Amino acid sequence: MLSGGDSRREAVTAMVNAGQRELVAELERLDGGARFGRSGWERPGGGGGQARLLEDGDVFERAGVNCSAVHGDRLPELVARQHGLDPDSGFFATGLSVVAHPRNPYVPAFHANFRYFESGGTWWFGGGADLTPCYGFADDAAHFHRALKTYCDTFDPAFHAQAKRACDEYFTLPHRGETRGVGGIFFDHLHPEGPDGWHRAAAFTAAGIAAIAPAYLPIVRRRKDLPHGDRERQWQLYRRGRYVEFNLAHDRGTRFGLQTGGYVEAILMALPPLARWEFELTPEPGSPEAALADFLVPRDWAGEELAPETRVAG
Amino acid sequence: MLSGGDSRREAVTAMVNAGQRELVAELERLDGGARFGRSGWERPGGGGGQARLLEDGDVFERAGVNCSAVHGDRLPELVARQHGLDPDSGFFATGLSVVAHPRNPYVPAFHANFRYFESGGTWWFGGGADLTPCYGFADDAAHFHRALKTYCDTFDPAFHAQAKRACDEYFTLPHRGETRGVGGIFFDHLHPEGPDGWHRAAAFTAAGIAAIAPAYLPIVRRRKDLPHGDRERQWQLYRRGRYVEFNLAHDRGTRFGLQTGGYVEAILMALPPLARWEFELTPEPGSPEAALADFLVPRDWAGEELAPETRVAG
Repeated sequence: MLSGGDSRREAVTAMVNAGQRELVAELERLDGGARFGRSGWERPGGGGGQARLLEDGDVFERAGVNCSAVHGDRLPELVARQHGLDPDSGFFATGLSVVAHPRNPYVPAFHANFRYFESGGTWWFGGGADLTPCYGFADDAAHFHRALKTYCDTFDPAFHAQAKRACDEYFTLPHRGETRGVGGIFFDHLHPEGPDGWHRAAAFTAAGIAAIAPAYLPIVRRRKDLPHGDRERQWQLYRRGRYVEFNLAHDRGTRFGLQTGGYVEAILMALPPLARWEFELTPEPGSPEAALADFLVPRDWAGEELAPETRVAG
Repeated sequence: MLSGGDSRREAVTAMVNAGQRELVAELERLDGGARFGRSGWERPGGGGGQARLLEDGDVFERAGVNCSAVHGDRLPELVARQHGLDPDSGFFATGLSVVAHPRNPYVPAFHANFRYFESGGTWWFGGGADLTPCYGFADDAAHFHRALKTYCDTFDPAFHAQAKRACDEYFTLPHRGETRGVGGIFFDHLHPEGPDGWHRAAAFTAAGIAAIAPAYLPIVRRRKDLPHGDRERQWQLYRRGRYVEFNLAHDRGTRFGLQTGGYVEAILMALPPLARWEFELTPEPGSPEAALADFLVPRDWAGEELAPETRVAG
């Protein structure tokens, strides 16, 4: 039975570590060409993490699965202010982050993060997963959103719509008036009331980690061998520029990590291995590249009826 | 004789436009392979700019020379707060920005910006130029800093040391504990007292624009044909990742432009055309790549005695 803070911390840490092991194994199996490296790091103030990275694989140009568990006697000022907490409170935070930048431009990039935070008697869980295609395949977006809806519905039938909207709002590049990808889910401050609140939230988070592979990997499998050429590669590198813009200029997690002295290499592991910028690039009207802008406009992917294999404008 | 605000605005705008024309001509002549495109943009609130970009040249993978002149009845909140000005003041701002990302990894990247701002009865000039090498050539850093010191000394013998230090401080990646390059000069809020203050500052800014070519182009000429291979290219792309990190995560101008609805394509023209990230990359000890870290530590380049051709560790 979990009762005190320590056993809760141990339980969540174990969950995160197990999730990392399983995802590393699944991604390695799917890639077939490269293995994950392993790099531990320590936080000067307390705790640390383990970054696992696969580079230059057959399927993934880069895939990272990081976990961390950090603690301290004093909350960083930024966090304390943001959440209205006492900076003199001790804290504990753990999380699992997953990022995949596939080689084939038809395979969407993927990101997920599940986390737990405790400070001064309060706690919450957070999480999310989102998909960033360079080419719009309606089937992929629908599969992804349906998988996430199925997962969210185990917690509360109203949860998905809210977490989906929060994801669309979060993964926006305001300076471009674009979303980063086709969204997914995003939630934070999950702290259900009641005596079993903590257990419900922890179980939901564990289920979220378990939902990553079935939500994303089938999409990778069905697109990874699609033939493509330099045109598609150049478009992929260009779209990755948007990913970099979002992460460095907007992403709260990245900015928080960099501002609070987190381990830079692990934080920036989420960036693509190669990205390109081109001035005023305008895809040819009617091309699959031009169709992406409309494809990225948020819509109810989980609820839509789709033909068995629907590719938007291509 | 310049007396009212309008004639001052006209004079500075003409200076900036002439600087753009001359730099475009000089960079085109040096490149030999590609020409500058031209793209005008308008600011919904008033004014606009002209972006001139050379892409995929023989010497420059990307070179941009932008000028803008914007005005409005109301100062953006962000600017008003930052400078303690009344948001209801009208304003006028004009500037010239130059960026060069050379093809040859031995040629350093370059950036410069000269600007003028007027609001509610006050005005100031600002400017700067800095050099970002991937490989450390002491001669290049010394030439660059000496050229800038010669320029600054025309205004005030104490000016250079101050502007050099401000540049080292500004072009820092705090999350990496590194400077972006070997610095140069940076100044803002230049508003000399006295009846000829405005004219002195305007003339100094014009001289700064004129100093760009002699400070940078000789370095390009002597390095652009140095033989290099994939190793140097990969290192260059990797170092450009730092450039992207600085511009998107730290640069005040970029962040201000993106937050206030500036023209995204012109703002992000400063980014390199291609950049790469690699996890925990550590150059081989004793290699020219490893020597860069020490080379970037700020020092008195303008004052140092150097042998005629000194390349640091390589």
